[in-house]
Amino acid sequence: MSKNFDSPQDAEDAFYDALDDSSLQAMMSTWEDSDAVVCLIPMAPLRIGFQEVMAGWQPLMEGKVKIEVEVHHLHWIETGDLAVHFVEERISLVGENQKQPPMYATNIYRKGEKGWRMILHQNAPTPPPPGIVPPGMV
Amino acid sequence: MSKNFDSPQDAEDAFYDALDDSSLQAMMSTWEDSDAVVCLIPMAPLRIGFQEVMAGWQPLMEGKVKIEVEVHHLHWIETGDLAVHFVEERISLVGENQKQPPMYATNIYRKGEKGWRMILHQNAPTPPPPGIVPPGMV
Repeated sequence: MSKNFDSPQDAEDAFYDALDDSSLQAMMSTWEDSDAVVCLIPMAPLRIGFQEVMAGWQPLMEGKVKIEVEVHHLHWIETGDLAVHFVEERISLVGENQKQPPMYATNIYRKGEKGWRMILHQNAPTPPPPGIVPPGMV
Repeated sequence: MSKNFDSPQDAEDAFYDALDDSSLQAMMSTWEDSDAVVCLIPMAPLRIGFQEVMAGWQPLMEGKVKIEVEVHHLHWIETGDLAVHFVEERISLVGENQKQPPMYATNIYRKGEKGWRMILHQNAPTPPPPGIVPPGMV
């Protein structure tokens, strides 16, 4: 089942396809199978390590809500075996017209024996929903 | 005024010292002076490019609220000229006892002619404050 991704972009395409398809298996095939992976998404605790990351995605992948993500690349940095993609995610709920605020994600990929895999995903909305006052911005 | 940072950690220490000292000049000395830098913090729009990033930090640096940040490293990845630090930030307001939720930050540094400089900072609280419902997690 495991795929080899020849480029960071291949892994990224598969990551967002997995979200669109609500496929946990496809989602996890895009992550490096190690204790070092990191995932931080809103409304969920920090997840470190492949098993924790998988447990974090499970409710979203198995839930009733289907999403579609339109991805816009804003910036990327690539080296021989490490790639950083900073993207805007425009997420919509299938069957609903309500517009969601854009999310911004840092996606980091590493090249290993099995090709490129995601090792870090952090996203956050911006501007954030009203009512959040971070320290120092009062 | 410009300092050369010999390691990603030196740049990171200076970044958080600048926050503690509310020094915009010190803060900006830790960033790569290019159009490619990215900063995303809560309650603020996405900033891309050195000038935008500086404009983003200015209100916090020049405001009346002083903060202290305690940083805990959770994970890092370093290559020859690119370094990713994923850290927990425990932020407190000077003179206040109110506990803030922890923030998690992805900090990315790049080695250039002037040593290591920050090129990306994204942070977000987790678990997030109540009331935020990200798409698909209903």
